[in-house]
Amino acid sequence: MNQIEVCVSPGLYKDYENSEAVVVVTDILRASSAIVTAFMNGVDKLMPVGTLEEAKAKKDAGYMVAAERDGLVRDFADFGNSPYNFTKERVEGNEIVYSTTNGTHAINLASSGHSVLVGAYLNISALAKHIIEQDRDLLILCAGWKNKFNLEDTLFAGALAELVLKSDKFETICDATNGAIDLFRVAQPNLLQYIDKAAQRTRLQKNGLDDVIPYCHEFDKTDIIPAFEDGIIQAL
Amino acid sequence: MNQIEVCVSPGLYKDYENSEAVVVVTDILRASSAIVTAFMNGVDKLMPVGTLEEAKAKKDAGYMVAAERDGLVRDFADFGNSPYNFTKERVEGNEIVYSTTNGTHAINLASSGHSVLVGAYLNISALAKHIIEQDRDLLILCAGWKNKFNLEDTLFAGALAELVLKSDKFETICDATNGAIDLFRVAQPNLLQYIDKAAQRTRLQKNGLDDVIPYCHEFDKTDIIPAFEDGIIQAL
Repeated sequence: MNQIEVCVSPGLYKDYENSEAVVVVTDILRASSAIVTAFMNGVDKLMPVGTLEEAKAKKDAGYMVAAERDGLVRDFADFGNSPYNFTKERVEGNEIVYSTTNGTHAINLASSGHSVLVGAYLNISALAKHIIEQDRDLLILCAGWKNKFNLEDTLFAGALAELVLKSDKFETICDATNGAIDLFRVAQPNLLQYIDKAAQRTRLQKNGLDDVIPYCHEFDKTDIIPAFEDGIIQAL
Repeated sequence: MNQIEVCVSPGLYKDYENSEAVVVVTDILRASSAIVTAFMNGVDKLMPVGTLEEAKAKKDAGYMVAAERDGLVRDFADFGNSPYNFTKERVEGNEIVYSTTNGTHAINLASSGHSVLVGAYLNISALAKHIIEQDRDLLILCAGWKNKFNLEDTLFAGALAELVLKSDKFETICDATNGAIDLFRVAQPNLLQYIDKAAQRTRLQKNGLDDVIPYCHEFDKTDIIPAFEDGIIQAL
């Protein structure tokens, strides 16, 4: 039977690492929602880099760069981390270097898995279907906030785990998975109202960036699944 | 306003560390429940040591030693980690060296806080009252399982946070705290039934050690608060 595990923070990843698992990285507010959106709008490739120094070097080498820290666009970058930044006009057919506070670090970390996928509510059903077809262990890695547990990623992990558990090929004995599923059930009747208590909602609000929260909690806007391999994210 | 934070695993402790906070370490199944029980039965001092090598050296130096790994008593030790091991006959007036899979490591880690207390359901109300009187930040450190998130410690963290938040001197903007409170509310109507899904319950059951689970979820059997300072746990 395939196992599902949830790792609630990149800081715990080494204790969950599983080279046989499909690893789904999620950073609902906002990197993974932005990445899925970029592919919906026709981006060709995204290159996640962990540090701003790397992002800056790529900019100097002529790449288009999206880069933020703590929610704010860095001055050398072309744009930031809002899904609304990744418009068709900007991204279609392009290769873009991308660096964020939490999400891009988590994606690079996850590369020890069998495969690495980027998950958001925007593509959750397509993702669950694909994972079930893969028929191997699933590890959901929450990007968190500077290694701290966050609600929005944990809720998504619960939502995805619940969908995948509908297949009789998966089970879980992972406490974080069971906790995430129960939290999602608490939140589900009014997910956006629940997200009001997430610390990240307050952080985004302070910078006037919380307009994307409803969009980042819309289900199934696309069947596209971004996958990370050899340093590059491309649509499967 | 004093802040409450919950750190769901020792693996994330460095990202929550707060030298101004009262740190409550919890390992409900079973170390923190066993420690509280030891003081209920009159132990004089407990000396938590992280490694089995240290525990063995203390045994060779003539100390009484309680030591387990993965739920099983180590052969050099006098007894293991069940609260039922810490009987009045064994512990009253004694100094005991103690080493467990997760709990004793977490206690040593927490010593960077302003003060370190040991928390269990057995002393939860007395603990909440004391914390409110201290009038400073509260950090609840869950011992977890080999750095993984666990349900039983997270639920306790939620229960304790909820009690402390009844004081108007505390608030929280910590996602792990809010998540833990909501999970405790889900579990509370039948806490023992909820704990059935905890991985640690299955681990204990495999070794015939799950008889202590109901006892470890009994509320307010004592007002004793064990505190850790300079390498030694003593009752406040």
